[in-house]
Amino acid sequence: MEVKAPESLKKPLNIPQKTLMGPGPSNASPRVMYAVGQNVLGHMHSEVFQAMDEIKEGLRYVFQTQNDLTLAISASGHAGMEAVLSNLVEPGERVLIAINGIWGIRAADMATRYVHTVTAIAGDNFTLTLLESTIEKVRPKLLFIVQGESSAGVYQPIEGLGNICHRYNCLLAVDTVASLGSVPFLADKWGVDAVYSGSQKVLGCPPGLAPISFSPRAQKVIFERKTKVPVFYWDMTELGQQWNCFNNIRPYHHTTCSNLIFGLREGLALIVEEGLENVEKRHKLCALRLYEGLQRLGLRPFVEDIHKRLPTVTSITIPEDVDWRQVIAYAMKNYNLEISGGLGPTAGKVWRIGLMGYNATPDKVDLVLKVLKEALQEAKTGSKL
Amino acid sequence: MEVKAPESLKKPLNIPQKTLMGPGPSNASPRVMYAVGQNVLGHMHSEVFQAMDEIKEGLRYVFQTQNDLTLAISASGHAGMEAVLSNLVEPGERVLIAINGIWGIRAADMATRYVHTVTAIAGDNFTLTLLESTIEKVRPKLLFIVQGESSAGVYQPIEGLGNICHRYNCLLAVDTVASLGSVPFLADKWGVDAVYSGSQKVLGCPPGLAPISFSPRAQKVIFERKTKVPVFYWDMTELGQQWNCFNNIRPYHHTTCSNLIFGLREGLALIVEEGLENVEKRHKLCALRLYEGLQRLGLRPFVEDIHKRLPTVTSITIPEDVDWRQVIAYAMKNYNLEISGGLGPTAGKVWRIGLMGYNATPDKVDLVLKVLKEALQEAKTGSKL
Repeated sequence: MEVKAPESLKKPLNIPQKTLMGPGPSNASPRVMYAVGQNVLGHMHSEVFQAMDEIKEGLRYVFQTQNDLTLAISASGHAGMEAVLSNLVEPGERVLIAINGIWGIRAADMATRYVHTVTAIAGDNFTLTLLESTIEKVRPKLLFIVQGESSAGVYQPIEGLGNICHRYNCLLAVDTVASLGSVPFLADKWGVDAVYSGSQKVLGCPPGLAPISFSPRAQKVIFERKTKVPVFYWDMTELGQQWNCFNNIRPYHHTTCSNLIFGLREGLALIVEEGLENVEKRHKLCALRLYEGLQRLGLRPFVEDIHKRLPTVTSITIPEDVDWRQVIAYAMKNYNLEISGGLGPTAGKVWRIGLMGYNATPDKVDLVLKVLKEALQEAKTGSKL
Repeated sequence: MEVKAPESLKKPLNIPQKTLMGPGPSNASPRVMYAVGQNVLGHMHSEVFQAMDEIKEGLRYVFQTQNDLTLAISASGHAGMEAVLSNLVEPGERVLIAINGIWGIRAADMATRYVHTVTAIAGDNFTLTLLESTIEKVRPKLLFIVQGESSAGVYQPIEGLGNICHRYNCLLAVDTVASLGSVPFLADKWGVDAVYSGSQKVLGCPPGLAPISFSPRAQKVIFERKTKVPVFYWDMTELGQQWNCFNNIRPYHHTTCSNLIFGLREGLALIVEEGLENVEKRHKLCALRLYEGLQRLGLRPFVEDIHKRLPTVTSITIPEDVDWRQVIAYAMKNYNLEISGGLGPTAGKVWRIGLMGYNATPDKVDLVLKVLKEALQEAKTGSKL
């Protein structure tokens, strides 16, 4: 053999226990991880098909929709974003992206790969009036907007937007990666045509699956495309068959990962058992508990208006006299606890604390506050780690 | 809530133990599954970066390459196929696909989404002479060929093809999803420009990661594209950065799944410990043991020439007097053992028995032969299951 066996792979692997309180992934519950760690099953086995059917039902519940075309794509949240864009628009059509942080920027990057005309509006929190006047001007085929902008911790209301979009023959696509399960999301009632999320946030699973759902209106658009869906792996006409959304054939499209599927099934089962309203309430109460604690520590949420804050990700303005990296390093070194810095537009400006799924509990809030307090004292006294 | 919580998710989950001896996924080793089932870590954590670095080294070993651009895509083997096609060709260029079964058909479907001119040649095992004359006629930018065609169990030699391709300024892309680790694959020596595989076959991991590697020649083609890589999720200029293949920045591209990454790290570590030559030898010996056993049972391998057989997937011609479905059902019902039918062109014509990774052992060969013998007796006596 010309290329020798690498020495690095002869050493044992060590996976530390950490408490993930950044913007995600979050820790998964032991029940989810038990399912993930079981033996692999084939992608065409009846047990896997049953779990896929149950996932569809669970996703219709968390998205609050009756959409037939509801499933989980075998990849991370970005796959959901790209599946929405690649399935719903064709070359020559116009896309409007409401950019309130890094995810809108990402969507704009992706959209330029599928259409020529991508118009973006930037803001921190969009009013329906602004969105309507922009739609009227741009006349896009699709409006893309993020409900929970985790780079800044901003919550964007969606209610009322579906009607506006449909009045202009525009489809409404919503990113709920960081928000789903923590705030109400009513796909059917709000007229949402495409929505996706990630498995590793409130749903409490490892990353690797992207729940997604398309309205009948969006489904029709996909089936009436003039051109093939440009990406085989995101082609909803094929994925919808594999997930048995249309009829009763389940042809082979790609090899799904039974371990992640069983994990997501369990993550959804936990939400069903607790009740979606209770899950949302728990996230809200934990966020309030965090805000109070931050106030006691003299820290200010980056998003001043409490109604604009996302309960899952709280961004905190970094005080001028503190080295933000030192706080993050203190928490990891002493508690194996993850607190994150900003991302994209908020890099260097904020810390971000995640309260999602399994980690959205009062004791985790208290833990992160205790660690923050200690870390700030260390950072302010200028002690070296 | 308008959409009620589904009853199906209130029931407990049961994941049966099965022996997967179809064409994949195969059972993963307990060591791999231990790693997969550990707690989730963040995609930017140092332990995950270290595992990614170790995976790169392990993949260079199993692909036998020094390629910088070597990594694992966060999706199944089909993602590797689509990444190769979407990165290496641009609209207006020509692709040549050597179709020897379903994977070539798939690649042709995918390729039509990226270029207008896709030429296919069909056969069961291609000679270098035929491939060269076709390349000379078609003058493609890229030749796509499958080393291990698992739908029929055919092995396609690759050695010598790189030189031919490069003489015509053509890139050589090879699918090794079903073959890698079971037969020699020498990417650099053979002049392969793009190669990919799947995690769930000989590498002995759950599905969900697609190892991939591009030669310097292919890397140059990607970086000198006139148009952006059409798919964000497969964009090797970005994935190569996230996997630290080019420089020392590791920007966020998408959320990788630490569990699958640690699993693949362990799968590769097992191959390193055993030695790649020994792994290949084990697969070969197990296949020979299977052929001998089949002969004792009066069964004929579908691929008559032993040199054309793929050791990982043995296709068996179904005798005329046997209901193939009954044999498969018997094995699953009585032994929780998976034997598969054909796929695509071989559907209804063959059974397929997989010997890969953790399941490529003499005792598994003997088990599958014992089960086949019983199942055939049952099927021939016409007993109902």
